[in-house]
Amino acid sequence: MAPTSPPPTPVIIDCDPGHDDVFAIWLAAGNPALDVRAVTTVAGNGTLEHTTLNARIALSVAGVHNVPVAAGASQPLSRAAKPAADIHGANALGGPATLPEPTGVPLDPRSAVDLMADTLLASESPVTLIPTGPLTNIAALLAARPDVVPAIREIIWMGGAVDRGNVTPYAEFNAWADPEAAEVVFKAARSEAAGGLGIKLTMVGLNVTHQALVTDEVIARVEAVDNATAAFGVQLLRFFCKTYAEVQGMPAAPLHDPVTVAIAIDRAVATVVRTHVDVETRGEFTAGATSVYLLDQAKGKDKNADVAMQLDVQRFWDLIVGSVERLA
Amino acid sequence: MAPTSPPPTPVIIDCDPGHDDVFAIWLAAGNPALDVRAVTTVAGNGTLEHTTLNARIALSVAGVHNVPVAAGASQPLSRAAKPAADIHGANALGGPATLPEPTGVPLDPRSAVDLMADTLLASESPVTLIPTGPLTNIAALLAARPDVVPAIREIIWMGGAVDRGNVTPYAEFNAWADPEAAEVVFKAARSEAAGGLGIKLTMVGLNVTHQALVTDEVIARVEAVDNATAAFGVQLLRFFCKTYAEVQGMPAAPLHDPVTVAIAIDRAVATVVRTHVDVETRGEFTAGATSVYLLDQAKGKDKNADVAMQLDVQRFWDLIVGSVERLA
Amino acid sequence: MAPTSPPPTPVIIDCDPGHDDVFAIWLAAGNPALDVRAVTTVAGNGTLEHTTLNARIALSVAGVHNVPVAAGASQPLSRAAKPAADIHGANALGGPATLPEPTGVPLDPRSAVDLMADTLLASESPVTLIPTGPLTNIAALLAARPDVVPAIREIIWMGGAVDRGNVTPYAEFNAWADPEAAEVVFKAARSEAAGGLGIKLTMVGLNVTHQALVTDEVIARVEAVDNATAAFGVQLLRFFCKTYAEVQGMPAAPLHDPVTVAIAIDRAVATVVRTHVDVETRGEFTAGATSVYLLDQAKGKDKNADVAMQLDVQRFWDLIVGSVERLA
Amino acid sequence: MAPTSPPPTPVIIDCDPGHDDVFAIWLAAGNPALDVRAVTTVAGNGTLEHTTLNARIALSVAGVHNVPVAAGASQPLSRAAKPAADIHGANALGGPATLPEPTGVPLDPRSAVDLMADTLLASESPVTLIPTGPLTNIAALLAARPDVVPAIREIIWMGGAVDRGNVTPYAEFNAWADPEAAEVVFKAARSEAAGGLGIKLTMVGLNVTHQALVTDEVIARVEAVDNATAAFGVQLLRFFCKTYAEVQGMPAAPLHDPVTVAIAIDRAVATVVRTHVDVETRGEFTAGATSVYLLDQAKGKDKNADVAMQLDVQRFWDLIVGSVERLA
Repeated sequence: MAPTSPPPTPVIIDCDPGHDDVFAIWLAAGNPALDVRAVTTVAGNGTLEHTTLNARIALSVAGVHNVPVAAGASQPLSRAAKPAADIHGANALGGPATLPEPTGVPLDPRSAVDLMADTLLASESPVTLIPTGPLTNIAALLAARPDVVPAIREIIWMGGAVDRGNVTPYAEFNAWADPEAAEVVFKAARSEAAGGLGIKLTMVGLNVTHQALVTDEVIARVEAVDNATAAFGVQLLRFFCKTYAEVQGMPAAPLHDPVTVAIAIDRAVATVVRTHVDVETRGEFTAGATSVYLLDQAKGKDKNADVAMQLDVQRFWDLIVGSVERLA
Repeated sequence: MAPTSPPPTPVIIDCDPGHDDVFAIWLAAGNPALDVRAVTTVAGNGTLEHTTLNARIALSVAGVHNVPVAAGASQPLSRAAKPAADIHGANALGGPATLPEPTGVPLDPRSAVDLMADTLLASESPVTLIPTGPLTNIAALLAARPDVVPAIREIIWMGGAVDRGNVTPYAEFNAWADPEAAEVVFKAARSEAAGGLGIKLTMVGLNVTHQALVTDEVIARVEAVDNATAAFGVQLLRFFCKTYAEVQGMPAAPLHDPVTVAIAIDRAVATVVRTHVDVETRGEFTAGATSVYLLDQAKGKDKNADVAMQLDVQRFWDLIVGSVERLA
Repeated sequence: MAPTSPPPTPVIIDCDPGHDDVFAIWLAAGNPALDVRAVTTVAGNGTLEHTTLNARIALSVAGVHNVPVAAGASQPLSRAAKPAADIHGANALGGPATLPEPTGVPLDPRSAVDLMADTLLASESPVTLIPTGPLTNIAALLAARPDVVPAIREIIWMGGAVDRGNVTPYAEFNAWADPEAAEVVFKAARSEAAGGLGIKLTMVGLNVTHQALVTDEVIARVEAVDNATAAFGVQLLRFFCKTYAEVQGMPAAPLHDPVTVAIAIDRAVATVVRTHVDVETRGEFTAGATSVYLLDQAKGKDKNADVAMQLDVQRFWDLIVGSVERLA
Repeated sequence: MAPTSPPPTPVIIDCDPGHDDVFAIWLAAGNPALDVRAVTTVAGNGTLEHTTLNARIALSVAGVHNVPVAAGASQPLSRAAKPAADIHGANALGGPATLPEPTGVPLDPRSAVDLMADTLLASESPVTLIPTGPLTNIAALLAARPDVVPAIREIIWMGGAVDRGNVTPYAEFNAWADPEAAEVVFKAARSEAAGGLGIKLTMVGLNVTHQALVTDEVIARVEAVDNATAAFGVQLLRFFCKTYAEVQGMPAAPLHDPVTVAIAIDRAVATVVRTHVDVETRGEFTAGATSVYLLDQAKGKDKNADVAMQLDVQRFWDLIVGSVERLA
């Protein structure tokens, strides 16, 4: 008798698509190890209106029709929203001449927090939350619905950095966009003895996502896949590389967000360091800096995060291409 | 034919009892102008366990059995909870030798945010939120459930100060306990043009609540009421005056929280100034200061709050005594 | 044989004239209990150029020709200078149609810190420093010249507030203009056990200076003095009252700065509370707030300042008028 | 006839020895391109008492007897001093069993700021300031003595970092020890149009000093020099490598401070990027972070610093060994 696979892990993707968020959704939807139970959206790379539409388009293009999508916060907890139009374009999904209307992917009338809470409580096993944008929705969920905390398996977040940022010298975009929300999540990830909720948290920062570079070879591999998802994806990747070259002077764009999903599929795809992380909310020049204690700096501090460090680049792209192949 | 009264205003009291919170609950429950639809609790004057039990006791003692009570946040958004045991005692309701078990007031299994959201959506007319503790639950509601915002009539909060505070030189306890939550609420009260949600907000700070002093005459008036509520209330008032005398050196304790409810009953009980208020979240010595712009200081700034200034003291105590008389 | 008076106390006035600074200079120069050894200037009410010229004019008008005047900092330690032109006019000494050229009051070529240090070291007895503007020069002196600290008798500063400010809700102008410098001085005033230098410091904040109101009666008393100083002074007072009425809506202007000098002359002119004071340098809305611990709030904290509270208003104006009478 | 060399550049070394500061002093004193006019000391790696004694020892051991040494600030501008005893030992110069008494190097009675100011004004050509510790003295000089600014050729500071720090995740020791002083200096380095004094500033941060590693080969080269300076120096280097291995887990210690002097000798020893740098003074977790704008991040910001990036390691050690050879 053939060995049976373990059941897929239920996940919720909370995102702000954005080019790399789209690939995060596709990577999850196309991989048998994960079961995408919901997609929720937040303002970030674009306005909430755009990120919500784009999430529905991502599912529609890939032929994924059974996943509810709900809109969440249109603004950070206590700061103004500042979309990254220079990187993602005015509609947050620059590249295709016109974006298709999503079909068969209606907008769920619930708020993102409600959809997340309902999904968590309805699941037969704990659910992994994969936020790939500002943490506004996740912070709101933790603050509003303490009853769902036991149903959270873990949180794997794309955001922060171990060294330099990409918006200001020390802040990465998702952390910079809503530092207060990030601090809520990192505090919730502390042990109960240290005043937290003991939620398992993995931080996937720029230091690791900058290893996931969209080289010409990567584009060629995606292009070689013969389906609608790949065709749409190549347009996204080409635009993304172009703006990264112009704005950040990088020869290839880093496909940040799907690294989180890759870790949810296979923890071995990246090494991690378990340590203490604080989020700066009060600095004049450093708001949103993720202060990651390495070496002996964390001595005596509660370790509240696994911080991803080294990516298995080959394995990562194999996972991406594999998912794209399995989609429509 | 006799003229008919307008229907009572539906209200939700979000509180951390606490001596003065108990009188806020009683003032609302005993006054025909208000219809208390729910009571939710938050950590503040005491731990969440104590404040939730005390809210149920307050209703039980007064014979109010039809109002659901739900527990909310056990901690501020991103700071540690620090109960005010020096003022309210170890169980947050010092005075009575032993506290009675609440009867006929079960704990609702929903989270505070869920109970608030359900109550708001179920109401035939917009609901007034009356928070008398740290704003953690209200901030969580606004962040998690944007769909309920249209059902909020207004928010009347006890907290902040126009001049000096009572925990640090410039911060009042409820604002100091969760400045990040307060900032979320005050930003939500901005106009949409200024990035807010346009929620109507009234701040009832120390400057006005310190006019609601529990003098010997006040105690005598409550004592003269011949019912269980009054008997219990007098014990609370005596304890409260004693700790205020010891800790703050004040000859009579200020009964802060019910001033909010009095304003919900009759806006004429206090004068207000409409102006701009920020909440300091970043200061080293001033976290939780409510920065209230008076005179011409607010020029050009969005006016996001009605700030209560002058209390009609006689009318206030008449309302309190009237409610106590109407209860069990 | 007549009893001999004690020798006058040597003082240095560090100022940013400004209408009220001029009266501070005159009060000191005209009172036999003080011996003005130097006047130093700082940017504040006006640019350094204006405040330095105005200090020389103040001495020249009053016929005081033997006091060296040196210019100090043209900017706060690490913030930009923002003159208070709305209150003091474009030249910081609005009122007179044209300002006279100072005669017999040359500018000393030394820096303010050098003149202060030389004056301190040359004095036969400790010298009182009376800063009436932002504390930039004093902070620079303490940081640069630890050798002169033993020669400082005490520092009496006009600045800060016990309750509300006059630039922002919680910050007074001099503290707001250079909070970092103020923090240096208040930390130097801590005991050595608390990491300070043990310098005696008196804070003369808005709470007390707002008792020194320039009423019509005050103006009449000054006007009744028959000399050039009085004639010039009345023009200043009229302008100052006019802008205070317009900008702050106050019926009479508070003559802040001379209250410091009055205390140097006669400590009984104001009551003080000895307590702990911090200066907020990090707040978003409260930078420059002087966090004054009253009641039991200072428990366990090092007491680093005498904070002036209640002014003997009659005695204050008697001192002012007496000095004006003794000048040219 | 032989070509004549240009006259040596006059320099003042403001330091907190500290093992690497000693080598900075020696590198300057032993190199014919520089003329050390003064050494001033500040609390940092050790207390002021220790750093001052150690500066005198460094000169004494090397047979340098004509350079005045003056003590400066015993504490940061507004924070407490926190010596780095774990790295430098209790006396800030761990290694030698006993430290020799300095001979022929008396302590100048002037304050550090006074000695710097006098030296600057007495020099026939502008003087380079080389601070290798916290910037307290330099900030005090700039604030107290604006008259000497034209006599400053440039400031070359060891401190800060382009990416991670060594005390907290984002702060290097010298910047962390006195962020307020560092901010004063970086603001003074802005153009006059941007509110600064236009002082030329080079930042030599961890990113470049971590290239100056004391390998076994380096130690062997120093040991091969047959003089007292080398013998003492080897003891220092061995101790320094030992504590770096223990505390930071680094196989070889970075000899931070002399990189500044090497740049003063020969600017080609390191590449630099001219850009905008801010110093964080307000962060909760990031105080002292030097926020260095790279790529296009500095767009529209005033460029106030040359930030050293790539060290010519071979040339650096050749300069060090050459100086040690020329000393006693």
